[in-house]
Amino acid sequence: MKNLKGALMFGQSGGPTSVINSSAAGVFIEALKQPLITEIYGAAHGIKGILEEDFYDIRKESAEELMLLKNTPSSALGSVRYKLKAADADETDYIRILEVFKKYNIRYFFYNGGNDSMDTCNKISKYLLSKGYECNIIGVPKTIDNDLFGTDHCPGYGSAAKYVATTLMELFLDATVYDKGQITIVEIMGRNAGWLTAAAALATYKGKGADLIYLPELPFDIDKFLVDVKAVADKNNGKVIVALSEGIKTKEGLYVAEAIAQNSASRDSFGHTQLGGVAATLAELVKEKIGGKVRAIEFSLLQRCGAHLASKVDVEEAFLAGSTAVKAAVSGETDKMVIFKRDTTSKTYKCDPVLMDVALAANTEKTVPLSWIINNGTGLSKEYIDYALPLIQGDSKAPLVDGLPRFAELKKVKVNG
Amino acid sequence: MKNLKGALMFGQSGGPTSVINSSAAGVFIEALKQPLITEIYGAAHGIKGILEEDFYDIRKESAEELMLLKNTPSSALGSVRYKLKAADADETDYIRILEVFKKYNIRYFFYNGGNDSMDTCNKISKYLLSKGYECNIIGVPKTIDNDLFGTDHCPGYGSAAKYVATTLMELFLDATVYDKGQITIVEIMGRNAGWLTAAAALATYKGKGADLIYLPELPFDIDKFLVDVKAVADKNNGKVIVALSEGIKTKEGLYVAEAIAQNSASRDSFGHTQLGGVAATLAELVKEKIGGKVRAIEFSLLQRCGAHLASKVDVEEAFLAGSTAVKAAVSGETDKMVIFKRDTTSKTYKCDPVLMDVALAANTEKTVPLSWIINNGTGLSKEYIDYALPLIQGDSKAPLVDGLPRFAELKKVKVNG
Repeated sequence: MKNLKGALMFGQSGGPTSVINSSAAGVFIEALKQPLITEIYGAAHGIKGILEEDFYDIRKESAEELMLLKNTPSSALGSVRYKLKAADADETDYIRILEVFKKYNIRYFFYNGGNDSMDTCNKISKYLLSKGYECNIIGVPKTIDNDLFGTDHCPGYGSAAKYVATTLMELFLDATVYDKGQITIVEIMGRNAGWLTAAAALATYKGKGADLIYLPELPFDIDKFLVDVKAVADKNNGKVIVALSEGIKTKEGLYVAEAIAQNSASRDSFGHTQLGGVAATLAELVKEKIGGKVRAIEFSLLQRCGAHLASKVDVEEAFLAGSTAVKAAVSGETDKMVIFKRDTTSKTYKCDPVLMDVALAANTEKTVPLSWIINNGTGLSKEYIDYALPLIQGDSKAPLVDGLPRFAELKKVKVNG
Repeated sequence: MKNLKGALMFGQSGGPTSVINSSAAGVFIEALKQPLITEIYGAAHGIKGILEEDFYDIRKESAEELMLLKNTPSSALGSVRYKLKAADADETDYIRILEVFKKYNIRYFFYNGGNDSMDTCNKISKYLLSKGYECNIIGVPKTIDNDLFGTDHCPGYGSAAKYVATTLMELFLDATVYDKGQITIVEIMGRNAGWLTAAAALATYKGKGADLIYLPELPFDIDKFLVDVKAVADKNNGKVIVALSEGIKTKEGLYVAEAIAQNSASRDSFGHTQLGGVAATLAELVKEKIGGKVRAIEFSLLQRCGAHLASKVDVEEAFLAGSTAVKAAVSGETDKMVIFKRDTTSKTYKCDPVLMDVALAANTEKTVPLSWIINNGTGLSKEYIDYALPLIQGDSKAPLVDGLPRFAELKKVKVNG
């Protein structure tokens, strides 16, 4: 593909992370240096902003605010969950995208997201190519789930993992403070891939973490779980910390809250499935079967937007993913995504951004290797620790004003249609 | 009281905070400098450790680890919830305490906690005096609830408030990221005093916080709450953030979850009161009455042990509370507690530790002034902001090793009985 002079469009998609805006900063700041790039647009709410011609003129933003994006969590342009249909099933969106791209002479498109977003990049890329419209498209990866195929890890994961590990270390000190026992059950995000829950093992590695860790990679056996918890309680004066993924399922493929509701005819299954997540549901079961003080804790949204605990490595790599995408596109690359390749021969951590065909990542999920799950399905091996520790190094956070973070405040000047 | 040469006993009591160990560091490090103090003991699990003759020899700890206590959350010696009976009702515990104090020549006793702990100080002090045993006793305040009478504020509050405000700012960015609305209901600790929930107003002051804040100081009207939420939703494209105290009660004096369960005959009240806190319960109600995406988030234990977000002002004042207590005791003071007195004539924040009769604080609770609660019971006035902002200034956290906090690791050498 040629490298034409033209405008740049950038969009953010899917669930927030602490560093998705750092990739935005990487894209924008690199774009400002590139003579081939004319206008720089940020789409409001990802693909939806493109379809609705709703985007911001990034050249109107100050360099200072763009740099503050590095440490501002969530998606400053707004996010969206929108999956494009296949073009041969429904061409409507594609026709509209081509129309908008032509109108604004958009020749560089970057989409920042997970599996679905890489699929979006791939579909738009193929469609524009088929219509002879030249536009260089590069996917920029992000997800706290770390489940993108092809890359050593994803920007967003390191910071969320650091949040999980640090918070569990603090919780450990709190939950074991009394002379009496307490069983603490912590629910961590990740529907199908257990990467983020695995980060609990980093706290355990430091001697202050979960006794039992359950990932969705293995079927969850409720009876075995009760036996596991009882064994730790008997050994540790009733003090047990469990970390488990929101996505754990029984071998029958049921989410745990569903499975328990089905087996408890005497209870109101509506109340169970509505009010509690898996930690709350299991906490009630443990209270009933084992007894004592039991507490369920959900890290909820906090784990994905806790930018005050971001990893410096993650913030810098997210930025690099954005700037690398722009450099690649202006040099003529398209239909690719930025991935990270770790130099496994290096004694110190060395991981460089490289390009991969975006089709390879679209809609595939990378899960935790089963060989890394040890202790009869309740722990992570040293391989995981060696893999994850380099990703959580260093601090990088917003400057404080009045003792509170000073996040980026974009002007968000709308581009008139 | 005379200032005798003798041993020091220090105990930690009640719920953890991020800085209770900073007060311990203040006590221990000051005690090491005092020629009148012979042995330095730390009671395992507060008063329980004294009764059971279970305590640690702090002189065996390294200065480095003692300094790391400043940034180690929870109670390093272990905590307890144990309320002494009145001596004239049951003298057993007092007889035992006197016995242990005599055996180890304990002449200086410091107890770190909230209302109950100040009551404990007062009772032991009065009892020992009545028996002619000379022992200087000073209470060291701590509580995230900030409800201790007599002091401008309590060590522990600033850090928890900083956690609440920072986390709400991050949550605001996350919860408003999509083009679609979301009603987010955040539950914050504080049974009877709304100080910690009020900290949500610091985020609102920064333009990124809760739209509606409900404190337990005012009766909670469920119907009005629904009207309030609907009004914000209508104005803000369905995006609403609510912060409320776990302790809010209806005008009949019922906790909200109880009140809703009573009014919902068709539902299983057991399921409700067991599984969900007030946020989860109200989230379900909002889903039913207003609709749309609703999410309940409990800050749970995280808000009281989040030492990675501690306020430097709080960490230093907690330390100062401990060292001031020791200095006061060796100069002959007893039956007092350390409080903080703010210089309201100073343009910059100036707050000094002074002494107050401990009896004044025992078992009394200080709540948020009703005049500070504005916006028809949903917000806090500028008086609160001016009060709270100085308390959350600066960062102070544990050094990182492997990207994770290096907390104090005490040797905890037991003193043989």
